Amino acid sequence: MKCQNYSLNRQTERENLNLNPLQRGGVLPPESRQALYEFSDGYSVCDYCAGRLDQVPRPSISGFLEDMACFINVDHVRTVHGAREGKFAVMHAICQPGDTVLVDGNAHYTSHLAAERNGLNIVEVPSSGYPEHRISPEGYRETLDELYDMGEEVSLVLLTHVDGDYGNVTDARGVGKVAHDAGIPFLLNCAYSMGRMPIDSKGWNVDFVVGSGHKSMAASGPIGILGVQDEWADLILKRSNRHEVKELEMLGCTTRGAPIATLMASLPHLIDRVDKWDVEVEKTRYFVSEMEKISGVRQIGVRPTEHDLVRFETPFFHSIADKHPRKGFYLYEELKKRNIVGIKRGQTQWFKCSVYGFSQEQVHYIAHSFAEIADKYREIGD
Amino acid sequence: MKCQNYSLNRQTERENLNLNPLQRGGVLPPESRQALYEFSDGYSVCDYCAGRLDQVPRPSISGFLEDMACFINVDHVRTVHGAREGKFAVMHAICQPGDTVLVDGNAHYTSHLAAERNGLNIVEVPSSGYPEHRISPEGYRETLDELYDMGEEVSLVLLTHVDGDYGNVTDARGVGKVAHDAGIPFLLNCAYSMGRMPIDSKGWNVDFVVGSGHKSMAASGPIGILGVQDEWADLILKRSNRHEVKELEMLGCTTRGAPIATLMASLPHLIDRVDKWDVEVEKTRYFVSEMEKISGVRQIGVRPTEHDLVRFETPFFHSIADKHPRKGFYLYEELKKRNIVGIKRGQTQWFKCSVYGFSQEQVHYIAHSFAEIADKYREIGD
Ligand SMILES: Cc1ncc(COP(=O)(O)O)c(C=O)c1O
Ligand SMILES: Cc1ncc(COP(=O)(O)O)c(C=O)c1O
Repeated sequence: MKCQNYSLNRQTERENLNLNPLQRGGVLPPESRQALYEFSDGYSVCDYCAGRLDQVPRPSISGFLEDMACFINVDHVRTVHGAREGKFAVMHAICQPGDTVLVDGNAHYTSHLAAERNGLNIVEVPSSGYPEHRISPEGYRETLDELYDMGEEVSLVLLTHVDGDYGNVTDARGVGKVAHDAGIPFLLNCAYSMGRMPIDSKGWNVDFVVGSGHKSMAASGPIGILGVQDEWADLILKRSNRHEVKELEMLGCTTRGAPIATLMASLPHLIDRVDKWDVEVEKTRYFVSEMEKISGVRQIGVRPTEHDLVRFETPFFHSIADKHPRKGFYLYEELKKRNIVGIKRGQTQWFKCSVYGFSQEQVHYIAHSFAEIADKYREIGD
Repeated sequence: MKCQNYSLNRQTERENLNLNPLQRGGVLPPESRQALYEFSDGYSVCDYCAGRLDQVPRPSISGFLEDMACFINVDHVRTVHGAREGKFAVMHAICQPGDTVLVDGNAHYTSHLAAERNGLNIVEVPSSGYPEHRISPEGYRETLDELYDMGEEVSLVLLTHVDGDYGNVTDARGVGKVAHDAGIPFLLNCAYSMGRMPIDSKGWNVDFVVGSGHKSMAASGPIGILGVQDEWADLILKRSNRHEVKELEMLGCTTRGAPIATLMASLPHLIDRVDKWDVEVEKTRYFVSEMEKISGVRQIGVRPTEHDLVRFETPFFHSIADKHPRKGFYLYEELKKRNIVGIKRGQTQWFKCSVYGFSQEQVHYIAHSFAEIADKYREIGD
């Protein structure tokens, strides 16, 4: 048989300025590219395994997990395949089908899927709605009180630390206190924060924390982090009855290959960049202020933004699309001419983007490019 | 904080002749190293995703999955994180806690863990025991009959196509017929076969098939293949109620990163090498015959071997260990001096190894090296 042509290249996304928020935090530093080269082949991290991935001495996965635990202030760390697999494992270990989990109204679809795959009911804490979409500890307390009054038990409280729609940074400590006061375990989804901003699991009363290596930790996907406090270790890291050393929720072992080598190589880089998170936020605020100089552009979500993922309403760009011969594609095409990619093709009414990791000059160039495009079509927009 | 030194290099295993069976089938061809470079960063295969990984047009994951389906003769294919995650997903989708699965006595620990994590009971079909450890369709039929007589229902029949202890190739078609006759769905674990030897899922009455990219398909881990026949697609590939396009057992998507790019790049190479499987088996038989010229060395499992993974009893090498100043480590060290690695340090009584993918000259050199070591210590062995 003959294979189709799969177009296995990514030059466009690698060589242009990519504003896709999904891709900004996963770019590998050079040392992780080197690790990828070393550990390219198959089960490359398993050469010195004596039965447990998390205890492999060479490369020192055990040492890395200790460092990670310190980095996010949690007792135990395992790698999983991603944030969603971490959430699934926690729910699978501590909930029974039919149980109820409480999640924020901005939760990622993968939180819903992890619950649904486990047969759980989802109750949502509503956000404040348009335009801020804010999630608050008070909202959690109210919803919990209502459920309590209805006699409904809650098995797990889940909070999206930073959501993927608005980049709102929630008050994890506040929600942690509410959950703690109610005696319900608390799972914090840090897919958009761990590796970008500081995470203080213990300080925030977090029982379980998940992160996403490919999303925010400069690692090759798929890989995620699952952090567990001591109190829950026996349950979440339960061993197999038959194969004594193997952890059941990990199916023995998880990241048996290159992605963990890239995450290990990236950890020093992550420690460093998390220290400079303020600079990233400042850069994004500058970007927002420049973008908002363009007619009608407005950042949605909590303001001023506290994260690099920003969502803009762009009615002016949309009005151009109506009259442009290339319709909605003009924006993508004009940006691409300027070596900017990552805004979805055809999207003009609103978009999400991020300038995380770009230099001040690049951010200036990007904002200027949008302004230039707006100017160019000033006549046909309204 | 400061990170420990993780010793992120794999030079020893990359640059020497590595006999570890776990590593032989996962070595990347050059085109897959190139793909790894292209798709190093984070969520690199998600740039053109419209909601479903398996439908991504660029790189053409959809085209690749069609080709894979053809390669293993199955209706639907998804990538999963590995063979174990594929087995877990199948059991999760079609069994209820408390159900019984029938597995062979040579099953991999991950089959047990997949069942245990799903709360299933395991009934085993015994092998013929030492020295062949053969698994037969008759054994499956007998065990099923016994269970039937006891009024015990079986929800799933699982067979390890090639086991990881003896490299025995089982009669998948025969077991498929037994399962089919009994009206029980049949899951074939091809972790050690898919990507090495031909797989004919439909021809063998297989309902579900799993493969391991990092083990036998020249891919960077973690990645696996899950094949499903049409009849079961609705159950295994069930969509979320809330997020209509997302597949529940996949948690939306699985291999969102570099490993799938390496597997895609490797498929033409796999098609090619599977065609030459006979040559590999011949090479291994030659290797076994050379090894068995060494005093007391004997291949265990079905003979002549039908797979590259072979297990040797090596009492002579063990008798040397008793008297050697370096004890059991001498064998590892003598081999390493000859640029051969992959036999566990300290192991001399028996070992598993594979010469898969080595040239005839290399195989000759490896066998000759073992003979040379035996000769060197002829005096102190018995
Ligand atoms: C808030 C949030 N959580 C979870 C995820 C999923 O992360 P992963 O791919 O690691 O499962 C995402 C990814 O988009 C996200 O934005
Ligand atoms: C027979 C068999 N099945 C399954 C596995 C596990 O494969 P994976 O790592 O893809 O889950 C192995 C790996 O050693 C194996 O030998």
